Amino acid sequence: MTSQSPAHPRFTAEVVLRWGDMDAFGHVNNVQYHRLLEEARIRAFGEWFHSSGGDTMLRSGVLLARQEIEYLEQMVYRPEPIAIEMWVTQVGGATWDMGYEIRDRDMLYARAESTLVAFDLAAQGPRRLTADERAALGSLLGEPVAMRRRR
Amino acid sequence: MTSQSPAHPRFTAEVVLRWGDMDAFGHVNNVQYHRLLEEARIRAFGEWFHSSGGDTMLRSGVLLARQEIEYLEQMVYRPEPIAIEMWVTQVGGATWDMGYEIRDRDMLYARAESTLVAFDLAAQGPRRLTADERAALGSLLGEPVAMRRRR
Amino acid sequence: MTSQSPAHPRFTAEVVLRWGDMDAFGHVNNVQYHRLLEEARIRAFGEWFHSSGGDTMLRSGVLLARQEIEYLEQMVYRPEPIAIEMWVTQVGGATWDMGYEIRDRDMLYARAESTLVAFDLAAQGPRRLTADERAALGSLLGEPVAMRRRR
Amino acid sequence: MTSQSPAHPRFTAEVVLRWGDMDAFGHVNNVQYHRLLEEARIRAFGEWFHSSGGDTMLRSGVLLARQEIEYLEQMVYRPEPIAIEMWVTQVGGATWDMGYEIRDRDMLYARAESTLVAFDLAAQGPRRLTADERAALGSLLGEPVAMRRRR
Repeated sequence: MTSQSPAHPRFTAEVVLRWGDMDAFGHVNNVQYHRLLEEARIRAFGEWFHSSGGDTMLRSGVLLARQEIEYLEQMVYRPEPIAIEMWVTQVGGATWDMGYEIRDRDMLYARAESTLVAFDLAAQGPRRLTADERAALGSLLGEPVAMRRRR
Repeated sequence: MTSQSPAHPRFTAEVVLRWGDMDAFGHVNNVQYHRLLEEARIRAFGEWFHSSGGDTMLRSGVLLARQEIEYLEQMVYRPEPIAIEMWVTQVGGATWDMGYEIRDRDMLYARAESTLVAFDLAAQGPRRLTADERAALGSLLGEPVAMRRRR
Repeated sequence: MTSQSPAHPRFTAEVVLRWGDMDAFGHVNNVQYHRLLEEARIRAFGEWFHSSGGDTMLRSGVLLARQEIEYLEQMVYRPEPIAIEMWVTQVGGATWDMGYEIRDRDMLYARAESTLVAFDLAAQGPRRLTADERAALGSLLGEPVAMRRRR
Repeated sequence: MTSQSPAHPRFTAEVVLRWGDMDAFGHVNNVQYHRLLEEARIRAFGEWFHSSGGDTMLRSGVLLARQEIEYLEQMVYRPEPIAIEMWVTQVGGATWDMGYEIRDRDMLYARAESTLVAFDLAAQGPRRLTADERAALGSLLGEPVAMRRRR
């Protein structure tokens, strides 16, 4: 699937597949796409929230409130990493939405979207995004995810 | 979260958690919710498509084209199974949509929706649903999934 | 593989397979045997250490120091649980050894052995087994695991 | 744990951790060590059996007959890969034994040993190693794995 270069900045994480990500159908299992998205997100957070004190977001806690994925192409294990491009589609008080594309040069394997909630693990409740966090997320603000199969 | 009894028939699969489904936050990992949904689906297919020759659907192949989930409550490991209720929200020529609720008595942990494609693994392409398959799916036709967080 | 009834008491946990435990070879993946053993162990601990205050062992912490497995038969997903029989092969001051057989009626899929260490998560060091814990483990003391392939 | 440089050649695979490899104890789960060993093995096979026709070993089939591991240090997620060093400890007609060390500079997290069987997936039985395969394995022949906890 051909990719036009996006109009907005994206953050790309290289994520390494494992042979064990494949299931009995001989391709990367649908559940493991979510594992790859999680890993991309963790790597992104390490970068995005660095200026606001390193891995604050992970330490303080962050919950996934929603995730949506469209599977476009079957993926087969190979030793080279795949690229997961990420951008921000909305920023709220305690939450933000992110878009993802799992891709490899001209191949688009899946597109996805998440809603994340900054969470205070100690207080077990949502917490407001800090100004630094909002700035980091705002710098990656881009287009909505072009879901095709949503009813 | 209180559950009103649904107006339409649902199929319930009991799915057993594993301690290893939990992540470093001490609750069932977001990715593993998809593993639980997959397992519920596999168990449902064994029942739904029994009259049309047992596990035909799995043998001939079935692909997930889309999945959407809203996480409502954190889940912690316990030895007792959780209940995954499933129903059908749309039937097409080669595809169908399904709704899910992951629940436990009065607690609703997550709601989800999938689009599935009947797939011919040999020919590597979609195939039409048979009349028996359409009848099985039609008998579970129910309300749309009441997503709350979709933009 | 025929099973003679063992001379010593064993504890049996029923563990449920998942379709996703299978890999691209179409059988339960070698790594997932360890996931099944972990789940059996967790369920056993809930029973064995009940008299000493429920899930004390898991709360206070327990580490796996060693594990050995011999794979005897390929396992394919089915909805019915498999049986994991467990017994104790040695009890030390802070550690114990356990044997396992993963089986299904007359079929023996794998045998395994672990060394476990009672661990104080707060102090980050081993702790002595309590008298109740030693009594629970002692009541399941049995024969060594009959490994065949160890050099 | 200090590592003396080994007297025999070893093959090193860099394997990337995932945040999701951690469990509720906040360290890499014992089962996932086996996932890391599997991934290292797959990467090694791609190199070792290259001269005998690329991924012949994986295509024709290879089974794990036995695996033993000693856990030495807790591992925590970080974005940088860990190193898994591998060597061969014995070569037979249809089988071979391999040693592993999971390490990171001066830290040794685990040592392990496997017995592998070259397997003919079509015939569902073991097959003899080819001369090229034996040569590849022979070039990595080294010391036995120094297990400390084996009874």
